[in-house]
Amino acid sequence: MSNSSTRKIPVGILGATGTVGQRFIQLLENHPNFEIKSLAASPRSEGKAYSNAVNWKLSTAIPKNIQHLVLKSCKADQFKECRLIFSGLDSDVAEKIEEEFFKAELFVFSNAKNHRMSPTVPLCVPLVNTNHLDIIPIQQKLYNLKKGFLVTNANCATTGLVVPLKALEESFGEIERVSVTTLQSISGAGYPGVPSLDIFDNVIPFIDGEEEKLEIETSKILGNVKNEKFENSRIKVSATCNRVAVLDGHMECVSVSFKDKSKLPDISALKSALQNYECEAQKLKVYSTMKNDINFNPIVVFEENNRPQPRLDRDVNFGMSVSVGRIRKCDLFDFKFTVLLHNTILGAAGSSIMNAEVALKKGYVY
Amino acid sequence: MSNSSTRKIPVGILGATGTVGQRFIQLLENHPNFEIKSLAASPRSEGKAYSNAVNWKLSTAIPKNIQHLVLKSCKADQFKECRLIFSGLDSDVAEKIEEEFFKAELFVFSNAKNHRMSPTVPLCVPLVNTNHLDIIPIQQKLYNLKKGFLVTNANCATTGLVVPLKALEESFGEIERVSVTTLQSISGAGYPGVPSLDIFDNVIPFIDGEEEKLEIETSKILGNVKNEKFENSRIKVSATCNRVAVLDGHMECVSVSFKDKSKLPDISALKSALQNYECEAQKLKVYSTMKNDINFNPIVVFEENNRPQPRLDRDVNFGMSVSVGRIRKCDLFDFKFTVLLHNTILGAAGSSIMNAEVALKKGYVY
Amino acid sequence: MSNSSTRKIPVGILGATGTVGQRFIQLLENHPNFEIKSLAASPRSEGKAYSNAVNWKLSTAIPKNIQHLVLKSCKADQFKECRLIFSGLDSDVAEKIEEEFFKAELFVFSNAKNHRMSPTVPLCVPLVNTNHLDIIPIQQKLYNLKKGFLVTNANCATTGLVVPLKALEESFGEIERVSVTTLQSISGAGYPGVPSLDIFDNVIPFIDGEEEKLEIETSKILGNVKNEKFENSRIKVSATCNRVAVLDGHMECVSVSFKDKSKLPDISALKSALQNYECEAQKLKVYSTMKNDINFNPIVVFEENNRPQPRLDRDVNFGMSVSVGRIRKCDLFDFKFTVLLHNTILGAAGSSIMNAEVALKKGYVY
Amino acid sequence: MSNSSTRKIPVGILGATGTVGQRFIQLLENHPNFEIKSLAASPRSEGKAYSNAVNWKLSTAIPKNIQHLVLKSCKADQFKECRLIFSGLDSDVAEKIEEEFFKAELFVFSNAKNHRMSPTVPLCVPLVNTNHLDIIPIQQKLYNLKKGFLVTNANCATTGLVVPLKALEESFGEIERVSVTTLQSISGAGYPGVPSLDIFDNVIPFIDGEEEKLEIETSKILGNVKNEKFENSRIKVSATCNRVAVLDGHMECVSVSFKDKSKLPDISALKSALQNYECEAQKLKVYSTMKNDINFNPIVVFEENNRPQPRLDRDVNFGMSVSVGRIRKCDLFDFKFTVLLHNTILGAAGSSIMNAEVALKKGYVY
Repeated sequence: MSNSSTRKIPVGILGATGTVGQRFIQLLENHPNFEIKSLAASPRSEGKAYSNAVNWKLSTAIPKNIQHLVLKSCKADQFKECRLIFSGLDSDVAEKIEEEFFKAELFVFSNAKNHRMSPTVPLCVPLVNTNHLDIIPIQQKLYNLKKGFLVTNANCATTGLVVPLKALEESFGEIERVSVTTLQSISGAGYPGVPSLDIFDNVIPFIDGEEEKLEIETSKILGNVKNEKFENSRIKVSATCNRVAVLDGHMECVSVSFKDKSKLPDISALKSALQNYECEAQKLKVYSTMKNDINFNPIVVFEENNRPQPRLDRDVNFGMSVSVGRIRKCDLFDFKFTVLLHNTILGAAGSSIMNAEVALKKGYVY
Repeated sequence: MSNSSTRKIPVGILGATGTVGQRFIQLLENHPNFEIKSLAASPRSEGKAYSNAVNWKLSTAIPKNIQHLVLKSCKADQFKECRLIFSGLDSDVAEKIEEEFFKAELFVFSNAKNHRMSPTVPLCVPLVNTNHLDIIPIQQKLYNLKKGFLVTNANCATTGLVVPLKALEESFGEIERVSVTTLQSISGAGYPGVPSLDIFDNVIPFIDGEEEKLEIETSKILGNVKNEKFENSRIKVSATCNRVAVLDGHMECVSVSFKDKSKLPDISALKSALQNYECEAQKLKVYSTMKNDINFNPIVVFEENNRPQPRLDRDVNFGMSVSVGRIRKCDLFDFKFTVLLHNTILGAAGSSIMNAEVALKKGYVY
Repeated sequence: MSNSSTRKIPVGILGATGTVGQRFIQLLENHPNFEIKSLAASPRSEGKAYSNAVNWKLSTAIPKNIQHLVLKSCKADQFKECRLIFSGLDSDVAEKIEEEFFKAELFVFSNAKNHRMSPTVPLCVPLVNTNHLDIIPIQQKLYNLKKGFLVTNANCATTGLVVPLKALEESFGEIERVSVTTLQSISGAGYPGVPSLDIFDNVIPFIDGEEEKLEIETSKILGNVKNEKFENSRIKVSATCNRVAVLDGHMECVSVSFKDKSKLPDISALKSALQNYECEAQKLKVYSTMKNDINFNPIVVFEENNRPQPRLDRDVNFGMSVSVGRIRKCDLFDFKFTVLLHNTILGAAGSSIMNAEVALKKGYVY
Repeated sequence: MSNSSTRKIPVGILGATGTVGQRFIQLLENHPNFEIKSLAASPRSEGKAYSNAVNWKLSTAIPKNIQHLVLKSCKADQFKECRLIFSGLDSDVAEKIEEEFFKAELFVFSNAKNHRMSPTVPLCVPLVNTNHLDIIPIQQKLYNLKKGFLVTNANCATTGLVVPLKALEESFGEIERVSVTTLQSISGAGYPGVPSLDIFDNVIPFIDGEEEKLEIETSKILGNVKNEKFENSRIKVSATCNRVAVLDGHMECVSVSFKDKSKLPDISALKSALQNYECEAQKLKVYSTMKNDINFNPIVVFEENNRPQPRLDRDVNFGMSVSVGRIRKCDLFDFKFTVLLHNTILGAAGSSIMNAEVALKKGYVY
């Protein structure tokens, strides 16, 4: 690997001191395709060494080569040595900054919500719809760009939901109705995020904006690209979102109804469809699906009736797969099941990175 | 109060050292109608003073007059000084013991699941269907009893669900379909119950038998008594039950569809129907609805979008009301909302006690 | 009570929306001596109704008569209808504001740390050294005041420590050395306070300034008033403070060595000395020691070796007593034991209120 | 690795389904020196495949080659293909079973407490006193064995304590007095272990037998081997042990006094002595100190005043080092500091394995 390191894509991280930014740095350590060259965070961190500016919250150490990197301001002209940008910016500043960066001909992969629903910006869950990257040339034409572009990944809870939905639609046709109740972890709110006095011995039955994201984003992600445009799915999603006292890992209790009742599978066929689902990233053998020789599946199916559980299962396949269990018939819908994903890995930084890995294989990144 | 104490009904507690038994003892302290005379628990506690046998887990002290009561065995002939029995027995022993007690002409109010679905045993949620007590004479006829009978209360999660369902049916007609996902507290599993290594930083997506109880019991509770028989409701319930790291208080995310779409209320009418719902116990002014001059409502409606929360709201009206919040339209059902109840008060011992209070007012207990 | 309410002392609360301010409001509901007339918090809350401005975090409801009180600014001339002020202000603003209030001839009881070590300000733990109130005339002389004064209560962890120390010194003479390691709850840090990501599945081995407070305040509290001056105790305290994942209740593992080894008690005498310790507030029968006819002891001694525990024991005597358990000999010191107190009741607002109750009985407040 | 695998020592695990047994299996996956060949647990698991018998609680998967191993009974004649045994047995059965195994000429490394204080059994903390292995020939002589022997590791809390104590004694001479207050995690109690209702929002101020172990074992571990006998240290330890709501990682607040006050170091020298301490295992370059090219130190010193923290720091050096922070002067002792160790890795299974690695290098295991 070391001899190819000179050929790694130089990347920059925006929002590098935040929860998502820390995950970008952790997940990119020893990455064969990408090498962190520059970091930026808020103006008050500018000029500080990363290890002095960050309140590092992960249980692995800050990589040695990152500790002393000096934080820059979020200006595209400060990132000239980079070709690709991962953005973990907060949504209150992401909109304009990300625009500046992709218009400066940088490849931008963003975790922020701001541009997700834009008609020329791919909203890619890497285990689901990397075919949406094909809208990139349209975006470049619109903004008159040679190589720069912006790709977003989905909200964390949406990401966990759409993977099994996609797998089921591939095998059994359109899903018409989805009811989902989430139990989301505290890391989803960033840092300082949820005060301990609010969540300790408690559940908070509301997460601002989250239900809307689940309902809207799902429709774009499960839709198609046709005639150089996104064509949203007509799936109807009704979501209820709760915050629970779990560190990492969002659970989602999902009920689904298919459109075509004539093809309804039995439970065993449903499980097979989930377990055997393959995504483009996997076929392209991108790094996140090959790391440490894991035998990668986008979906891991559990037979035990008390699984998946956040603490035991969130790290399966390094947090890049979705776990599905409790698959059973439903009296009101066709089927119901429980989903788990690691919300700050697959649900955030990991998605951006895998999207970039796919874009690299497909030639959009170089 | 003291001068009327000679007229209190003498009661016995079965399963007195367990989680539910402890709540019976706590809630009956200074009760104007009932006075604990005898306690029984498992054979290994027999003969011990209560305070030596129990692993007391409540933050109020063991009442002085209870501490030195000597635990008896669960035999009816040991409870001759009692007229009424509250049973907090585990379901693996409750069936036969409770039978022995009500056949010995004792008034038995049980929290165990064993007899709940029996065709002559009332399954009463005191805020919902105390009219089911009217089946008592049929039960007495069947077993050839003069005064003894058995009344059960519902599973804790069922109890929280049926109160708002009943309120809505009274105002807007039959509910056809209910989808419910629960987030249930650890005290629901008794003691020692859930190992800390299982629930800490975790969710367990399964509670054995709980989903079935929610689906079956709801139908009996919301049904009628006709021609001396229970006539179950045809409501369809689909339930998913999770255990979360909360001490007390079950939350339930509920979606409902009414049968008659012509009468569908607007949100404001729906809230009024919930807030203004009155139950028989309340009209009869039983003690649990009058305690400390509370202004009792079966249902407390929250307008804030992040309420109810277990830690802040489980104790409203001394844990004897159900809290409902996040009332809103649903794209797949008609409406959705979030319910909270105190699972070991209204959801267990408190229900038995309020059922007994109503039975006293109605003359079944004397 | 209602007919005497005209004779209650009208009081104001500073910092009314904070954690300590909320406790003041909760504990003063239905208080026979004091009646809340005015509230103030930070400038951004000024002019708002209390229930709109506060993020209420207690499980009892906001008292009805408080909900609609309009928040004032922290100016003494806004509090003319009050005679007594309870201050729950943050230490970054308390210093000057409290000065303004007591110089405006108001009786000020403060929970802030700013004036605690001042040579004319009593630092009173109400179960320990209410005799220090006798310095009030000196303070009034210094500032040329007719009736106004400032009294502070101690840091929460200090409060828990000094109660058993005082009891032991009364019976067995001076304590020379104290080693204390604390396990402090999250509510001690106020709101939003400790981020959940910091304390969940964790211990934080440091609380800024806390160890110094324990070491310094203890010496003043256990000292005497002589010749119109405070004479500090020469006790040496070495403290280590940790934050743990507990909502309310500070635990302290304490080792002590007496100066005079000739009088060393046996364990049984030590327990008696703690259990039978009486304080002035108790002898004066102030309200907090009489409430609901509790049989008040400043110290509750536990014989079980796994008690006291925060969740089970923090509310003993409405959170106004200190619990002590695990009393045993120590190989390095003379004895060791474990202390528990409710940090936001006895450890904060409750202390201020009991100090005011004593000052009322002694005629400083009128 | 694969071609050398024939040369690995075949090992068996006793108590393989328990908390410690699971860690043995996890830590031995891909170990270059040892290969698991046989497993045993309680009689009710005998004959079952491991993955069917175990309630696996770790977030890494059960190694593939272990899943289908059939559990044996704890009889030495069932372990003939093994040369070395790791015992994670409960203390109520360990005594006799371990005796049978080492008398059957097997190398036994035990985590159980039963034989720790025996005059011919090494009680080895691998970062401290592997020189105690030199008593093995005496043990073999006593029991008339050719190669079999028994080596124990220490209690988890003791293990964390003795590492910095040893480092300090090496540099500054004998330590006379140690006061230690622990905050221990729930995994230390095994599974099911601590009921969630006991520890949630709580601290338990007592762990049965733990304080005695800290006081007694420390003295043996810090002692010497002289004239073929253990000579205990005269160090005096006073311990207070608490259980806190943390999954993994014991914290210990420690105060120490040296015997010879003339050599008292300054804080900076103290830190250096801890940071630079080297143990025999490290000099012998055993696998646990070389894994993944970590730069192993027995002690990691933290300068930040809010570290070490269990969640962030327990996994440093794969859980095989001790973290020390908050190093400062003490008014009552010479110095105080806070220690953290991973209680189920270095504090249990990891110690046994590292002891075996050292014994292998020294020729006792072959």
